[in-house]
Formats: sequence, C-alpha cells, structure tokens
Amino acid sequence: MDAIEVITTKRDGRPLSAAQIDWVIGAYTAGGVADEQMSALAMAILLNGMDRREIADWTAAMIRSGERMDWSALDRPTADKHSTGGVGDKITLPLAPLVAACGAYVPQLSGRGLGHTGGTLDKLESIAGWRASLSNDEMLAVLRGAGAVICAAGGGLAPADKKLYALRDVTGTVESIPLIASSIMSKKIAEGTGALVLDVKVGSGAFMKTVDDARELAATMVGLGADAGVATVALLTAMDRPLGRAVGNALEVAEAVEVLAGGGPADVVELTVRLAREMLDTAGVHGKDPEDALMDGSAMDAWRRMVAAQGGDPDAVLPSAAETVQITAPASGVLRRLDAYGVGLAAWRLGAGRARKEDPVSLGAGVTLHAGFGDIVRAGQPLMTLHADETERFERALEALDGAYEVGPASDPDALPLIIDRITA
Amino acid sequence: MDAIEVITTKRDGRPLSAAQIDWVIGAYTAGGVADEQMSALAMAILLNGMDRREIADWTAAMIRSGERMDWSALDRPTADKHSTGGVGDKITLPLAPLVAACGAYVPQLSGRGLGHTGGTLDKLESIAGWRASLSNDEMLAVLRGAGAVICAAGGGLAPADKKLYALRDVTGTVESIPLIASSIMSKKIAEGTGALVLDVKVGSGAFMKTVDDARELAATMVGLGADAGVATVALLTAMDRPLGRAVGNALEVAEAVEVLAGGGPADVVELTVRLAREMLDTAGVHGKDPEDALMDGSAMDAWRRMVAAQGGDPDAVLPSAAETVQITAPASGVLRRLDAYGVGLAAWRLGAGRARKEDPVSLGAGVTLHAGFGDIVRAGQPLMTLHADETERFERALEALDGAYEVGPASDPDALPLIIDRITA
Repeated sequence: MDAIEVITTKRDGRPLSAAQIDWVIGAYTAGGVADEQMSALAMAILLNGMDRREIADWTAAMIRSGERMDWSALDRPTADKHSTGGVGDKITLPLAPLVAACGAYVPQLSGRGLGHTGGTLDKLESIAGWRASLSNDEMLAVLRGAGAVICAAGGGLAPADKKLYALRDVTGTVESIPLIASSIMSKKIAEGTGALVLDVKVGSGAFMKTVDDARELAATMVGLGADAGVATVALLTAMDRPLGRAVGNALEVAEAVEVLAGGGPADVVELTVRLAREMLDTAGVHGKDPEDALMDGSAMDAWRRMVAAQGGDPDAVLPSAAETVQITAPASGVLRRLDAYGVGLAAWRLGAGRARKEDPVSLGAGVTLHAGFGDIVRAGQPLMTLHADETERFERALEALDGAYEVGPASDPDALPLIIDRITA
Repeated sequence: MDAIEVITTKRDGRPLSAAQIDWVIGAYTAGGVADEQMSALAMAILLNGMDRREIADWTAAMIRSGERMDWSALDRPTADKHSTGGVGDKITLPLAPLVAACGAYVPQLSGRGLGHTGGTLDKLESIAGWRASLSNDEMLAVLRGAGAVICAAGGGLAPADKKLYALRDVTGTVESIPLIASSIMSKKIAEGTGALVLDVKVGSGAFMKTVDDARELAATMVGLGADAGVATVALLTAMDRPLGRAVGNALEVAEAVEVLAGGGPADVVELTVRLAREMLDTAGVHGKDPEDALMDGSAMDAWRRMVAAQGGDPDAVLPSAAETVQITAPASGVLRRLDAYGVGLAAWRLGAGRARKEDPVSLGAGVTLHAGFGDIVRAGQPLMTLHADETERFERALEALDGAYEVGPASDPDALPLIIDRITA
C-alpha cells in the first residue's frame, strides 16, 4: 500500500477500505506518510466525503493511534459533555461539578480557545494556582475526590488526531463534517467516558452556521458513539447570540460561579440543567435533580473540591483587565440583534482569544453584556462593557461590534430557540 | 493574502483571482507557502477545475517565477515540438534535425523518462560522449552551428513548475488538465520558441486515455500558447499501440537514425514528416520539403552536427543489452492487438525506464517488435525480442506482456488512426 493509492482512491470518488484507512492513519502518525500527502487526502475527503462506515473506520484508526483510558475501577458511571464551541459558552464549568453532585463521575478532557471561540482550560486558568495538566493517576485521584475533573488531554490520546488537526488548520481542510466528527469522537471515545452528550452549536458564533449542517454533524457523531459502545445523545443549541452575559476568561468563570450559587443568566442555567439531565439519563444515573443541586449548594461544593484538587484557590480574586469602555444603547426599544460572531470577535481582539496556539491570552479581557438578546432597553442605557489590558485594543474591538447589535421595535423573528433539537442514535 | 484564503477560495468552487494566483505561485517558489498547503490547493484544483483565464494566469505566474529565454538574435524563426509522452515515441530525435535542415531553428528543452514512458534525454545519452546539460551560451552555439539543439532545461526556467511537479508526483495530483497544460506550456513558453506544435498522445500508453480528454488538453494548451503570443498547433495522435518497432533508449536511437537515413518504420516516418510540416508552417518557413530532406541526407547531416556539437560521437556503436528473450506468434493471423501500455511496462521492467527520478536507466534494455500492429504473421514467427542486462528481469516483463498482444482473424476495429485530429486556436 502507498499514500498515492489511498489519495487517488478518494480523489476519484471511491470509498476507502478499512485497510487503507488503517494504513494511512498509522503511517501518518509514524511519519511514513508526509504532511503534503495527508493534506491532499484531507482535501479529497472534504470535497468527496466519506460514508458512515469510512468515518467509523477513520475514527477507530485514530483511537488506535494512542491509548484508550479506562474508568472501570470507579464505582459509579461516567458521563461527559462536548460542545462544538461558541461565544460565552462556559457551560462546562458549572456542568461538570453539577453532574458530579448528582451522582455520575465526569472525566472531562478539554481544550484551549482558538479564534473567536473560547477554551475551557483558558477560562479555568483565571483561577490562581489551577493546573490544566494532570497525569492519568492525578486525574483519577481528582475524579475520586471531587467527582469531576477538567484537564488537558495528554499526548498519548489519539496522537493521529493531534497531528492531523494541526495540519488541517493550515491547509483549508477544517470544514469537513467527516473529519470534524471523527476528530471530536476519537478524543471523546479514547477518553473512556461511558456516556456522552454533545452540544452542537448553530449560528454565526458557531462552527456550523445552519441547522442542517449541525444536524448532519450531530447525527454523524451520535452514530460514531453508538458504533464504539458509548451511549451518545446530541442537542442542537443556539449560537446566533452569545450564551449568558459574560464573554472572556475570568468574566466567564465569575458567571459560572454565579450559576453554581443558584443565580446566573436564565439561558446559562437552562442549558446547564438540561445538559446535566441528558448526561445523567444517558449514564443511567437517577439520583438528585440538577436544579436542586444548584439550589442546595452541593454543586458548588463539588466545584470547590474540584478546583482545589487541581491546585486552584476557589476563593481567589479573579483577574480583571486594566481598561474598560462602555457602549450604550443608541435608541430605546428591544435589543433585537446581538450577533454571536461579532461579540466573539470583539472579545478575541480585546485579548481574550489567541490567533495561534502558542499565543498567550489575557485572563481579564472580554465583553460584559448589560442587556441580553430580546431585552427592552432605553436610549443611553449601558449595553456592554469592553475589558482590555491595553487601550489600543478598543478600536478594532469596536469595529468588530459595528453592526453586531441593533435596538429596534421587536425581536428578530429568525432567532433560534435556545434548544433547537435533540438527536439520538 | 494568505495560503488558507487561496485554498478555501478554490475549495469552495470559486475562481482564483490573478492576484491570488500570482501570490501563491511566488510564495510557494520562495518557500512562504508550505508543501502541505500547495498540495491541498492542487487537489482542490484537480477536483474543482480552473477556467481558461485562471489557467492562463497560473501559467504566466509560473513563467514569471524564472527566466524566459530569447532567440531574437537568430536570423531564422524558431519552432519546437512537445509530445505528452508515449511508448516508442522517439520522434524528437529525427524531427529536430529534420526541421533544422528545412530552415527553422529548433531549440528543444527535453526531459527524462518516468514510469512506462521514455525520455528523450535518456535516449540520447546512449550516444557515447553526448551531454544533456548545456549553458544558455552553449545552447545558442549548438543552435547556430547545427540548427537544432536538444538539451535539459536549466534550473532557472519555470522553477515553480519544477517544484510543483515534484509535489504533484507524490500527492496524487498529477491528473489535472489545468495543471498538466500549465506545466507543459510554462516550460515551452519560457523556452522562447516562436512556434510550437503539440503532439498529444491518446490511448493506453499515453497519459490521456480518451480522445475527449486529449482534445480538452490540446485545446487548453493551444489557447495558452495563443494567449502568450506563441503560434501553437496540436495534433492528437495514436498511442493505443507503440510507435515504430523499437522501445528502449539505444534501440530507439538506432530507429531514429534509420529514419534519418531515409528508411525506418512507416508510422514513425509519417508522423515525423507531418510534425515537421506543421512546425515549418507554424513558424512561417517555406523552404525544403521534409520528405526531401530525409531522402537527400540533409536531415542526417544536421543530426550528425547536432550530436557532435553536444560532445557525442555520431559513429559510436550504441550500447546493447547482455541478454535477450524472443517471443513468437502463438498462431497465424493478423497481429490485431499490440497494447502500448503493456509493451511500455515490459520495457520499463526490462530496465529502460525508472521508478524514481534518481534511478539510472539501462541504455540497452527494451523491446524490439518484429511485426507491427495490423501485420499478418505466421505461427512460430518471431513477434518481439526482449533485451535486458539481467536475466531476472524477464519474468516480470513477460507478465506485463501477458494479454498485451493478440493474433486473430482481423484487425481491431477500434484502433485509432495514427493522426486523429488537428487542433488550432
């Protein structure tokens, strides 16, 4: 077998055999297939697609390229959630300890932000002392002690995906549903969770701009989970406007803590509770109701244990940015449009995000929303506060917000419901 | 501008702008666009195509990546021929001196063989002392002295094409008409010829397997020539069976010398004379008729001057292979099939060709045909002789010929005419 044979098979519109997929993933991981060969194959896959069997074989080959974690020593079921990423999506932060407080273990491997979407690990690093990198033994210890752990994936997990993702990022081959689905699912299956709930975001601030694309991605991933023996459910949820009122690393941690304290924005609470119920149902755990766990402090207790077990001080004052600028409502009426991408881009330019993997992020930077989508506002009332470490960042952030919000007579009739659909195997 | 923008434009089916093409070819040549980015772009071009304007811009950018030769100091017009490659296609060898003898200058930059098709430079290196590499000044001196020169292209000519061709070769992105056409034409236009005749081969032994594909490639190249101010004509010619009776480096040189001496196989003579007339017409030279120049020895004189001017001894004994095997006719009847690819593959396996650019070739190896396509043969009569330096090469060569020839009651009704069509701007 050689790389050209595999590439030309897909180029000419024929399905790749299991043996071809196995060989090319293995050889690419080992260095026998060159980057320029893999990128040509990725483009052929993007343009000619893969069928369900090919995607399953591709995912399995990526899992086999590394270790597969095993939580069978634990005395309760495991459940995890994956979000395809959005603006203000801090749900993992309250969700993991909440589900732990309700009786399932949550072993979550998370990532960092890239572009206009934030990353869970960047957010948690706002907490003084908190460590993202844990050994497998440390991860197990945190899980046992706190019921939940959120940390970085080690290099041993799906190394083929790690290498391929970096390649796709620079070769215009990210936007392929088979490649996105297999990338996400290879990591989640290798992570060893027993139940998985996928939060597939739809809208301007998400990777999937349309409900149809999101549905296809969700169905593909749910099928891959089922094939691999991981009980998997997906929700399609709105990302046409930001989630909650805070966008930025420390700003989002503060909002997550509000939710754990029984408060927080209605949309964040609704989605957190709904995802917690899905995770518990999928894992077959029928203990405490998540709404109760938010109200009685048990979710907050799990959060504090989890943060402390990873070296963080749950009582530490969160970092804040040195400079702020306020935007006020230009008219009285309804905040009928609040574009997720525009707000995400502004937060990115304020310093909350990074352009390249190596870049640092500003922990305090971001956007605070003083009114949510659909709220009634008065002319001159504060709409948002922008936070940055340097004043020169405001100009380009304000440009990103130009046209991103609108106050008018009524709400946007095209706005998506918070929870659009639920996809099962 | 960046590579991802250019890649995604073509990936999403949109035409590349002249500025995008210029930038990406320039940056790739300079190393600012990585191989894995260019191969993804090449695959997107292969699958989504380029329109005529894009192909012209792509070709112009590749020409601008290096030097463009200039023969305006010469006192007669220049003409060149390019063949897309086939089995037994030694036409350049008699053609260049023949056209020189009829009054045009022939500055021909040629290549080496790869796979089952031979290369003109490999063939000429059968002649003791002959040198393929000449400086531009040496090339001009040979041209002035002999009227024709056949040599290797220097590194300064279309370096973008050189780099891109090597990349396409290992990434399954060779088979794209826009990329093939621009690769050929960028070199031929940079070579500086005033008139160009393209011999686009069709059939099993050629790159283009169907007349339709060959016609599209020919029309694309003729259009590129016209756009660049080079008078260009294309013939579509048969490559379903080998050309002539000799396949292999020294074997083909011997056949070329036969043609120059006024003999040689009818098909080689017919095609050589036809291409010579096309070159002279296209260059606007109306001197001696090529058929006369073959008969009166003037073409042979030009050949001897050309070979000698490049260090070769025109009287040297050509190398021959140490071992031979003869194949005889299995029955009496008509040689109704003689597959070009099968014969080319056999010659390759006998040592006449190379698998990688770095490999050496055997000068004496190849196949001699004792009967041509359509000839009447008797059972037991010699059909072909295989030549190789090592006896262990015969087994796989014989496998390549298995099913490649057939003796039957009548000729194959699907055989292509030697000259199928003529394409002009």
